[in-house]
Amino acid sequence: MAKPAKTPRPRAETPKGFRDYFGSDVTERAEMLRRIAGVYHRYGFDALESSAVETVEALGKFLPDVDRPNEGVFAWQDEDEKWLALRYDLTAPLARVYAQHRNDLPTPYRRYAMGPVWRNEKPGPGRFRQFYQCDADTVGTSSMAADAEICAMLADALEEVGIVKGDYIIRVNNRKVLNGVLEATGVSDAEQQAAVLRTIDKFDKVGEAGVRALLGKGRLDASGAYIDGVGLSDEQAEPVLAFLTSKGSDTNETLTNLRTAVGASEMGVQGVDELEEIASLLAAQGYGPDRIVIDPSVVRGLGYYTGPVFEAELTFDILDEKGRPRQFGSVAGGGRYDDLVARFTGQRVPAVGVSIGVDRLLAALREKGRTGDKAQGPVVVTVMDRDRMADYQAMVGELRRAGIRAEVYLGNPRNFGNQMKYADRRGSPVAIIAGSDEFDRDMVQVKDLILGAMIAQDATLEEWKDRPSQYEVPRGALVDKVREILSGHA
Amino acid sequence: MAKPAKTPRPRAETPKGFRDYFGSDVTERAEMLRRIAGVYHRYGFDALESSAVETVEALGKFLPDVDRPNEGVFAWQDEDEKWLALRYDLTAPLARVYAQHRNDLPTPYRRYAMGPVWRNEKPGPGRFRQFYQCDADTVGTSSMAADAEICAMLADALEEVGIVKGDYIIRVNNRKVLNGVLEATGVSDAEQQAAVLRTIDKFDKVGEAGVRALLGKGRLDASGAYIDGVGLSDEQAEPVLAFLTSKGSDTNETLTNLRTAVGASEMGVQGVDELEEIASLLAAQGYGPDRIVIDPSVVRGLGYYTGPVFEAELTFDILDEKGRPRQFGSVAGGGRYDDLVARFTGQRVPAVGVSIGVDRLLAALREKGRTGDKAQGPVVVTVMDRDRMADYQAMVGELRRAGIRAEVYLGNPRNFGNQMKYADRRGSPVAIIAGSDEFDRDMVQVKDLILGAMIAQDATLEEWKDRPSQYEVPRGALVDKVREILSGHA
Repeated sequence: MAKPAKTPRPRAETPKGFRDYFGSDVTERAEMLRRIAGVYHRYGFDALESSAVETVEALGKFLPDVDRPNEGVFAWQDEDEKWLALRYDLTAPLARVYAQHRNDLPTPYRRYAMGPVWRNEKPGPGRFRQFYQCDADTVGTSSMAADAEICAMLADALEEVGIVKGDYIIRVNNRKVLNGVLEATGVSDAEQQAAVLRTIDKFDKVGEAGVRALLGKGRLDASGAYIDGVGLSDEQAEPVLAFLTSKGSDTNETLTNLRTAVGASEMGVQGVDELEEIASLLAAQGYGPDRIVIDPSVVRGLGYYTGPVFEAELTFDILDEKGRPRQFGSVAGGGRYDDLVARFTGQRVPAVGVSIGVDRLLAALREKGRTGDKAQGPVVVTVMDRDRMADYQAMVGELRRAGIRAEVYLGNPRNFGNQMKYADRRGSPVAIIAGSDEFDRDMVQVKDLILGAMIAQDATLEEWKDRPSQYEVPRGALVDKVREILSGHA
Repeated sequence: MAKPAKTPRPRAETPKGFRDYFGSDVTERAEMLRRIAGVYHRYGFDALESSAVETVEALGKFLPDVDRPNEGVFAWQDEDEKWLALRYDLTAPLARVYAQHRNDLPTPYRRYAMGPVWRNEKPGPGRFRQFYQCDADTVGTSSMAADAEICAMLADALEEVGIVKGDYIIRVNNRKVLNGVLEATGVSDAEQQAAVLRTIDKFDKVGEAGVRALLGKGRLDASGAYIDGVGLSDEQAEPVLAFLTSKGSDTNETLTNLRTAVGASEMGVQGVDELEEIASLLAAQGYGPDRIVIDPSVVRGLGYYTGPVFEAELTFDILDEKGRPRQFGSVAGGGRYDDLVARFTGQRVPAVGVSIGVDRLLAALREKGRTGDKAQGPVVVTVMDRDRMADYQAMVGELRRAGIRAEVYLGNPRNFGNQMKYADRRGSPVAIIAGSDEFDRDMVQVKDLILGAMIAQDATLEEWKDRPSQYEVPRGALVDKVREILSGHA
């Protein structure tokens, strides 16, 4: 007789590109987002949590850098054949929410949103298909005060989570200025304009001379290959180079340089005026160029946004994989985009927003040792005598009521060594030990595991004798003794 | 020439059964979960955030009350034909996580998890396809201390969020006792056993006499229809009735009654022993039957779990839709389930857990007015003179630095009435007003909107004169005046 085929066991794995977060990875992120939410709240922004699932129709083909609809999202068909998908960012849902509820929402509508988004993209190292975003947007006003406010709020948020003044800079640029520069070049052919934009995007990499060559006849790249230029004359290229190098020693100088770069372009002048207004509004609130600065060399995102653009960079060095110092770089960016809900309502609604790179900012805080209260393992009450479980529970109850993280060992208590290994794995600062001998005398042993580990590592026998890491105290003094040890390690 | 077909605008709607959460709906829930997480942390539980997406293979057909695989979940095929799905609860992912990472996790593993889950079920009033769960589980120990601990932790969590002692009760029962009772009836036919269980489930509705009739020959229901009974003799039915009515005036009496009910059944005796151990461990920590009580009338969940079962009920009355008082009811439940990871590893791993009904508990807190800091609207700085925007920004900056929620009006300032309507819609407690007259004299108007509204509603002209709701103060006294008004309304 044939054996019935055995169902293979399922594999215990996350799907490709997904991951789990354990312990402090969860709590440190939650604490960081809570602090950011506090700042946003103080600025009058309201929380919004939209559903994770949207109709594909509502999401549209909004995904930046992707042309085809559905590309890059996780989508499926509902029972009534409607296509549903997981949101890929927090902006497309905001558009849908605003269009749906606009009659019940204040104008302008300031909202923040925090939560996971999903991308159906090829995963890679550090690139996951589910990750957090943290956005704040003001919908329904074209006032530059909204843009300035978001920059100030971003500065406050960074400082609130532990990035001190001097460790970050928020750079502000304006797409309209760039448009003015394009006008000033006299280039009207759309394809040539696009080529100019692509060249500007390379400024970070190839510098002024590189951009000059690429705007003109072209240049040899590092590999020796010849890269064709855009074919602009020197005169045509001048406004672009003036724009990219217009950063002066102060805001006024920068703005003057920008006015030169945009020449007679009306759009360009408007863009410079907007930057001037933002700078003046920020100055009035005490945000000088040491925190938020007009910087025309910021080109990232200029294609996506329609007006002011901003980017927050952390300016301290970290060591890369090869031990070389490099700047930490960007942790947040945003700008003005003025057609948020038009696809739903036909009406253009101005909006400006910012998005914080949650994982990058958390990594920066860790780098600086500023993730707040370090996750401390629990005090472990060991089990010497299984019949005394009620007594151990009473101890742990007392500790918790005193606000001390504590647990009773609930594994098999037979092997005491395993209990100490467990305490070690849990990162426990203190172990409590009480057997029948201690119970008879109404005493308890309190073992300082952090000191114990240090002694085990470094101390001579002599020192070891002088600095015992285990104390016998009366049962009634348990909480006080534990608190004393913990405060010594705080 | 035919006009090109116009693409219809997308509908701005959440998919059926999904919803958005605004403002305090988001922040009050977040604050409640943060407090619960604090309690869980104190008990030594670690946070876990698993991915929202799992392989269908890993999820299995775990969904309670559903027999077919994939039924009830949102699922789709990956690019390499693997079926993926959104998690429908937090227990199935825990099983996958524990099986995947068991070598790196402590034993026992205490973890808590909070987050949305998704159900592809017919939505209804108050029934959504995405909702929050909040779970805590201890994996890897069969010690009753784990069960007792979770009950104590649940009590602490409820009190921490604002459900005071006396407003809730946690009832504990045990599936093994029920199994013992079944043994004691002498019913061995599986179908007849199932019929007995179904009858027990009706105890809440039909009471002792009803169950007695249904276990025997049957009874007439309210509609006059005759319901066939299970066909047990009086003698056979006796243990079941003894079980359901075994709640005594104290724990000892209840346990004695249960011992009678299970008779000679080994399984039953073990179940009663477990309940006795839980009660004694809880008593040692100070949790008496006024908070956690052995109560054999709890039958919900008895089918799903394998050992102790517990349920937290809120005991205060609320008014139903018709204005009649009724008890608020269950807000959390859990129990022991001992085959969590066997489908992955072949190994039985004991586990016990609890799940808090997030939406229900939040509703209860609202009912009691205990959602913590009431969401306060921002102070609105109105705009009398557009050219003075920098001055308004400076005011709002000062207020925020003083920790006061504040914003500048960013809509079109031309119509002042609209600004006051906006402040009203935002629930603003205070409006700031300054025009050229005030700027010239370095003064500012501070308007108490809450008092203003009260006066407008109730006051006579005489009172109105005595209690002005608008104050002119020097510009330098702005923050102090606002703080004074806010503290008056706190």
